[in-house]
Amino acid sequence: MNKARTDAFTDGVFAIAITLLVLEIHIPELKAPDGAAGLDQAMRGYLATLGGPLLTYALSFGTVGIIWLNHHATFARISYVDRTGNVLNLLLLAIVCFIPFPTALLSRYGPLPSSTAFYGATFTAMSIAYALNWQYAVRKQHEIDPAFPVMTFREALPGTIGTLFYAIGALVALIAPRIAVWIYVAVALYYLLPGLFVQRGRGTAVSA
Amino acid sequence: MNKARTDAFTDGVFAIAITLLVLEIHIPELKAPDGAAGLDQAMRGYLATLGGPLLTYALSFGTVGIIWLNHHATFARISYVDRTGNVLNLLLLAIVCFIPFPTALLSRYGPLPSSTAFYGATFTAMSIAYALNWQYAVRKQHEIDPAFPVMTFREALPGTIGTLFYAIGALVALIAPRIAVWIYVAVALYYLLPGLFVQRGRGTAVSA
Amino acid sequence: MNKARTDAFTDGVFAIAITLLVLEIHIPELKAPDGAAGLDQAMRGYLATLGGPLLTYALSFGTVGIIWLNHHATFARISYVDRTGNVLNLLLLAIVCFIPFPTALLSRYGPLPSSTAFYGATFTAMSIAYALNWQYAVRKQHEIDPAFPVMTFREALPGTIGTLFYAIGALVALIAPRIAVWIYVAVALYYLLPGLFVQRGRGTAVSA
Amino acid sequence: MNKARTDAFTDGVFAIAITLLVLEIHIPELKAPDGAAGLDQAMRGYLATLGGPLLTYALSFGTVGIIWLNHHATFARISYVDRTGNVLNLLLLAIVCFIPFPTALLSRYGPLPSSTAFYGATFTAMSIAYALNWQYAVRKQHEIDPAFPVMTFREALPGTIGTLFYAIGALVALIAPRIAVWIYVAVALYYLLPGLFVQRGRGTAVSA
Repeated sequence: MNKARTDAFTDGVFAIAITLLVLEIHIPELKAPDGAAGLDQAMRGYLATLGGPLLTYALSFGTVGIIWLNHHATFARISYVDRTGNVLNLLLLAIVCFIPFPTALLSRYGPLPSSTAFYGATFTAMSIAYALNWQYAVRKQHEIDPAFPVMTFREALPGTIGTLFYAIGALVALIAPRIAVWIYVAVALYYLLPGLFVQRGRGTAVSA
Repeated sequence: MNKARTDAFTDGVFAIAITLLVLEIHIPELKAPDGAAGLDQAMRGYLATLGGPLLTYALSFGTVGIIWLNHHATFARISYVDRTGNVLNLLLLAIVCFIPFPTALLSRYGPLPSSTAFYGATFTAMSIAYALNWQYAVRKQHEIDPAFPVMTFREALPGTIGTLFYAIGALVALIAPRIAVWIYVAVALYYLLPGLFVQRGRGTAVSA
Repeated sequence: MNKARTDAFTDGVFAIAITLLVLEIHIPELKAPDGAAGLDQAMRGYLATLGGPLLTYALSFGTVGIIWLNHHATFARISYVDRTGNVLNLLLLAIVCFIPFPTALLSRYGPLPSSTAFYGATFTAMSIAYALNWQYAVRKQHEIDPAFPVMTFREALPGTIGTLFYAIGALVALIAPRIAVWIYVAVALYYLLPGLFVQRGRGTAVSA
Repeated sequence: MNKARTDAFTDGVFAIAITLLVLEIHIPELKAPDGAAGLDQAMRGYLATLGGPLLTYALSFGTVGIIWLNHHATFARISYVDRTGNVLNLLLLAIVCFIPFPTALLSRYGPLPSSTAFYGATFTAMSIAYALNWQYAVRKQHEIDPAFPVMTFREALPGTIGTLFYAIGALVALIAPRIAVWIYVAVALYYLLPGLFVQRGRGTAVSA
């Protein structure tokens, strides 16, 4: 199998899933009986409520972006992908492509306990699917090239922290959905900020 | 003609068609007269009905994913694509791109006889279009490079089984749509599971 | 400038524009007071009206596909793209990306004189933009490599026929929209069928 | 990190964001009590109001296209992208992907002061994010290869003009939204026309 086409397909799916997120910000049906001035008033009112949808958009965009960056960083070191690897990759992509849906529910109806937990559960599932892909790819590569290091517990830790906190967030959401949203934001910042402000060794702290 | 651009275009179309599937899960218009608590109740009720749409999403995603994996596996062995091959490929892509539509009907209205048969008929058409592409590519490649083996009946069999069962499913749907859905699921698992659990020889049992 | 990235971007835009066409087939709001059987009846009624939307989908898909094939065939022979070439390419892409919109109007409201003429006018504009791109690319390539042949009138003819018939179709639509649709279908078949049934010399009869 | 995958992902995101713009042109709900003739009348009425949405579409398409051309031109000269560069790129892409949303508001409700300012603010943010990316990439490249020139003030000027005029447009919009739209159009033409009519030295006057 040709790894370049798997990479291209994967990049395409990530690129599309991340771009579709904007379609989930609801275009309002504004009506104003008193012409353009009233319509502008209604539009101002609508724009003032965009804080929540914008945060949700940024959160989903950032989270999908992190997973893509990690996929990119991990798979650059892998030289081969077999059919099992492709099926595992499809599983990850199926969850990534699904993200616009819980994003839409959260964006449209705000942080309700149920929809915020559903959002966190989707991120948890994505995080687990990513770990499965990483584990499989690293082991397979080690089989082909024994010099390729298997992942140590310490290397796997940053990724596990992400999975754990998404799951905690999903549970917290059932009682305190607003706190859960900030847990998801904290996880995203934990992965994005080191890239911006710290020059860590490549390959660590990149898994979500 | 440049096969790399056909591959890139094809991968792009598959990536987009598979990603658009999520847009077909209907975002509900929830209303609750009694504020956030009532809205959460309504959201829970809605989330509880998502079993069918999620299965439909997974089924369409898995089926398009299989066809992509097969396209990928087959065309990696082909070195040349002419205008006829490109037109046949466009025919396949036109059906692949159409899949979000029967998926939306099935997802939104559940397994009605008519829409479930329409869904199966689309898969049957995709399967036939894929077989046409494969046959043409293999024959053309054999013309250019006589060492390239033409497909034997035994190699073509797994693909034919998929086509046959999609057609059977489409007919069964007219009487028992729920059983038809499980036939489609069985075909998807038949192609996906060997990739996950069995390490078959590459190149066999990959056609849907 | 890097022609590979222009090719990749162009392929991506074509792939997405062609895939978005399916979103323009309207998902109906079916209601049935008498449960699943009545809903299936309503679905059958809806599916029976899909002939027009399906033809429109196939027509737009085929036409965009032809333009992509031609772009692909032409630009494979070009080695260089400058900023003017990129801006001309953006102009073509802006029209290609616009096609889902007249397709949606035609698909949803059937062959009305106004929307059918609008559809044909869009195709005419795309055809002219494609000719501009082709002319510019061929002349630029000839400047760089004088051995590269400038296009003769005979080579340009098949493309001109497409442009002419799209324009005729757009005018005919104002009086007889159904006939105009068949003119558009005839143009698509004129470009697609030779690829399927005749092995012409590469490079001729491919421009729309 | 593999710059080719960053390029591919970026091209994919730009290609999708630019293609989604057409979905923001609102498909009308036309109703006519008096059959096809009345429906055609209603369609003519609707098509006559498309001037604004078409201008908005062209403006957003052109602006995203310019940023893509510039990204393309700048990053062709860069050989390396690190995690910080990727995170900055994600920031730019998050804004590019967001553009269909203010485009939809402007297209649907016309040039209201609030939505026209919001549209300009988004362009200003995109322009600043692009400048950050460019600055970082050029400095990083200079670190690796001291022969690579850092950007002089004169080179940075054309890009700064774009940022400045988007910001001015966003402020003007609050009082005179129609004039603001023409400021945005003027910025787009300032970047597109030289590509069409003047053969400037490559690498200058390309930043928005």
